[in-house]
Amino acid sequence: MMERVTIVGTGLIGASIGLALKQAGFAGVVTGVDTNSAELSAALFAHAIDRVASSELELRQATEQADVVVLAVPVLAVLDWMQRLAPALKPHQLVTDAGSTKQKIAEMAREHFNHKGTARFLPGHPMAGKEQGGAALADAELFRGATWLFTPVDSAEQALEAEWRAWVAKFGARAIDMDAARHDEICAWVSHLPQMLSTALAALLEERFAGDPARREEIAAIGGRALREMTRLGTSPYSIWRDIALTNSEPIAVTLHALEQRLAHLRENLRTPELKEEFRLANEFRMGKARKP
Amino acid sequence: MMERVTIVGTGLIGASIGLALKQAGFAGVVTGVDTNSAELSAALFAHAIDRVASSELELRQATEQADVVVLAVPVLAVLDWMQRLAPALKPHQLVTDAGSTKQKIAEMAREHFNHKGTARFLPGHPMAGKEQGGAALADAELFRGATWLFTPVDSAEQALEAEWRAWVAKFGARAIDMDAARHDEICAWVSHLPQMLSTALAALLEERFAGDPARREEIAAIGGRALREMTRLGTSPYSIWRDIALTNSEPIAVTLHALEQRLAHLRENLRTPELKEEFRLANEFRMGKARKP
Repeated sequence: MMERVTIVGTGLIGASIGLALKQAGFAGVVTGVDTNSAELSAALFAHAIDRVASSELELRQATEQADVVVLAVPVLAVLDWMQRLAPALKPHQLVTDAGSTKQKIAEMAREHFNHKGTARFLPGHPMAGKEQGGAALADAELFRGATWLFTPVDSAEQALEAEWRAWVAKFGARAIDMDAARHDEICAWVSHLPQMLSTALAALLEERFAGDPARREEIAAIGGRALREMTRLGTSPYSIWRDIALTNSEPIAVTLHALEQRLAHLRENLRTPELKEEFRLANEFRMGKARKP
Repeated sequence: MMERVTIVGTGLIGASIGLALKQAGFAGVVTGVDTNSAELSAALFAHAIDRVASSELELRQATEQADVVVLAVPVLAVLDWMQRLAPALKPHQLVTDAGSTKQKIAEMAREHFNHKGTARFLPGHPMAGKEQGGAALADAELFRGATWLFTPVDSAEQALEAEWRAWVAKFGARAIDMDAARHDEICAWVSHLPQMLSTALAALLEERFAGDPARREEIAAIGGRALREMTRLGTSPYSIWRDIALTNSEPIAVTLHALEQRLAHLRENLRTPELKEEFRLANEFRMGKARKP
């Protein structure tokens, strides 16, 4: 039975997990850990967590006495916490995470967890977020209708893992299990490529027109929804994306290279019937309906 | 005094101009012309136009008796209509348009209009639209808060031109005059590049995953707002963009090439501190606030 949960990283995702737990009826204690004390206070104020662990001693207690530890920090910090927690935790404990890439995390889980005498680790990745981060925007409904990916490293399943999955279902999320390598490849296409593309476009426009206030004003006046959408992700923080780029470089590079070639092809065919074929293919592409308006 | 307006092309933009005129108090007669009789009927049904001109005779009357002829068709069709109308119209008449590129149109205006004995031509470009086209979606408020670009070919101004500009102001649009070449260059950056990018991305994903239903479903399940936004413009129709690509090839090619290089730079720096600089620049980029939520 899960009675004590410790959430490491009480930003948007971590604090939303705390709120979702409470809304779903979790009656145990949620402890929050964050290097940023403002985020920690905001999470406490929002009742996403019941208490905070700040000192070394509190931190040790919070992790060693938890049934489930949720790592809701950027990927490299997840890896750091995994190394730190592995020797201290016991077999009855479960660690899970919300990191954006899964191969490196699954590798470390295979190495340091899920053995006789070690705690269990279930790599997870809720596909949810908001334009801006932070505990102040945390939302118990953040995961409703969202996909929650798991990339389990073995087929064994502890009772706590089954229970954690049941809570995720109560959050309103739809769980999908997949191989970590496949996860990282698909996320490179559907998430990392769009991000890098938006960053590149916004950086290009900024560098090109930053020194020219008149031109900059024209761009703001003339650019419409199209440009706004295509550059919106450009506001994403480097702090999170550095870790994603470092831990999924190869799959991301493959998608970027494919798009560079596609753009060159389109550029060389602006005046040929081949442009029609590109529009036809693009017209065929369909995503699911937006889940929130 | 403008009393008779003929709108050639009663799709979303043309029919919205008709509705905006009426809402702004225009008491004259609006005649609609369109090769697509369904669009023509829809515009009439929406009261965007008062009458239709279908036969050769009606068409000649509608254009030769109009005070103002508005060409709201794709760019190549604007050019065709300009050639057709130039010899038939008289100096007291004004022709204006809503075409997406302006250099070729301004060149033809300089050649065939705005001389002694010819009608006047004022190239225009309302920066407004909807995700889908068609007279059924026409909206008197479409231009409120939008920028309406004009690229006049000379500094002379007929009374009708001043009057047309006054109507555009009454639509709630903000007029900006600029050089046609500059218009096309800026639109390449803020409109044509985002479109081509979205088309290339959607076409790439479609080609890559169309033959793999399982992967396709995963993309729909996992892809979120980011991918949806970055591929939304992929649904744009070739029929309009063919004309834009043909009449603004060079400026578009320049922007595409610059972006290809930027993506390659980013790809080569996924694991270096240079990625931080790209995110910093992208974070600096700011557009104006969205004018409609």
